[in-house]
Amino acid sequence: MSAITTPASPISPRAILFDAYGTLFDVHSVVAAAEQLFPGRGDALSQLWRRKQIEYTQLRTLADPSGAHYAPFWDITVDALRYAAARLHLADSLTRAAEKRLMDEYTCLSAFPDVVPALKTLRERFDIPLAILSNGNPPMLDIAVKSAGMNGLFDHVLSVDAVRAYKPAAAAYALGTRAFGAAPREIVFVSSNGWNIAGAAWFGYATFWINRGGAPVEELGVAPRGIGGGMAELVAFIERGAP
Amino acid sequence: MSAITTPASPISPRAILFDAYGTLFDVHSVVAAAEQLFPGRGDALSQLWRRKQIEYTQLRTLADPSGAHYAPFWDITVDALRYAAARLHLADSLTRAAEKRLMDEYTCLSAFPDVVPALKTLRERFDIPLAILSNGNPPMLDIAVKSAGMNGLFDHVLSVDAVRAYKPAAAAYALGTRAFGAAPREIVFVSSNGWNIAGAAWFGYATFWINRGGAPVEELGVAPRGIGGGMAELVAFIERGAP
Repeated sequence: MSAITTPASPISPRAILFDAYGTLFDVHSVVAAAEQLFPGRGDALSQLWRRKQIEYTQLRTLADPSGAHYAPFWDITVDALRYAAARLHLADSLTRAAEKRLMDEYTCLSAFPDVVPALKTLRERFDIPLAILSNGNPPMLDIAVKSAGMNGLFDHVLSVDAVRAYKPAAAAYALGTRAFGAAPREIVFVSSNGWNIAGAAWFGYATFWINRGGAPVEELGVAPRGIGGGMAELVAFIERGAP
Repeated sequence: MSAITTPASPISPRAILFDAYGTLFDVHSVVAAAEQLFPGRGDALSQLWRRKQIEYTQLRTLADPSGAHYAPFWDITVDALRYAAARLHLADSLTRAAEKRLMDEYTCLSAFPDVVPALKTLRERFDIPLAILSNGNPPMLDIAVKSAGMNGLFDHVLSVDAVRAYKPAAAAYALGTRAFGAAPREIVFVSSNGWNIAGAAWFGYATFWINRGGAPVEELGVAPRGIGGGMAELVAFIERGAP
């Protein structure tokens, strides 16, 4: 039903902003631990956990964009885990020890294998600053970046915690334009999350969707500027001037 | 992680507001038609369709609460159907005729069997006005109310279309307080959707969650004032003065 907006003319990007969870960090790298704790249900738990985590961030900001119902991403991640376990009738097995084990896993998520090499290539080959713009709260992001071996690769690690509003609220995306003193269309925003790509496109960013799972484009009336199956395609996209 | 807010003291409700889709109307009554069109996939399509429909309403309002990305619920429902079909690799089978058939089904959803009898009981037994407060746009709601045999049972049929903001945005919930000239805590808000109950509770409504599926309470830090498995429990709750 919704008309697709055509992307604006090519730009020479002044910065590249990365979504973190699901894009750089593989949120489903917790599956192995979940499977050990809940045999046969690890994948289902991981999927529902992630879905509720995103839903809770959005509900809290939507109900009051000024942040009255804001809770840090860490707390929401615990809440989502508890809900997911209860929904799957695993609450009795989610002992304090099991919860701690899963949250520890979440603290040190694996990066997708193509992420660190591509970030290094981007830094070496182009004179474009890189940054993270994440829903994660600063202590979470700090540990995650370090444990994934991404230290020193980013000029900024921006957390929506500064504005107490989760993506796709405009206040969250505006952290990126403010950090670089650039217009949205001068910044490439990278995410694997379709909803995040739509939100960033609405905000005006030049979006690149890393579509690792071969999902369809979200039916939200905005097309990503670029789409690729992994980080190598992002490097090629930047090389072509983010056309 | 989130502390549960305890409900306020008992009230004598001045109005009862009903969420429509999923609460009065069974959104999964489309499964039979979906199953005929896509054998073995009807349930999966219906579940994903509904999930994307809710997600798209929330994303559009969250990205701009003033309504810049608002689209009517009918359009979003079509968008969500198209996405769900594509995601399940059924896009080639979603012909125009199939899409029309499913949207026709959506236009005339069945009411849950306990809904009309309970609404009639509420009207007969109590001097409390009843209303719908729905994400549905007015033409959709109009047909749905008529085709489900609910004509004349409601004092108001309120659509968020009037404010171009979807629940759980406060502007959407405020349609109810405005229609009745009452404070939120004087109005009982009824929904089967956990996220909607949380949003209504944040707004200040006295909430009653019709938990047909035996789901856990959402981990959003707000408890429903009342919970029941169906509409009969709502009637009993009102009889007790919405304690």
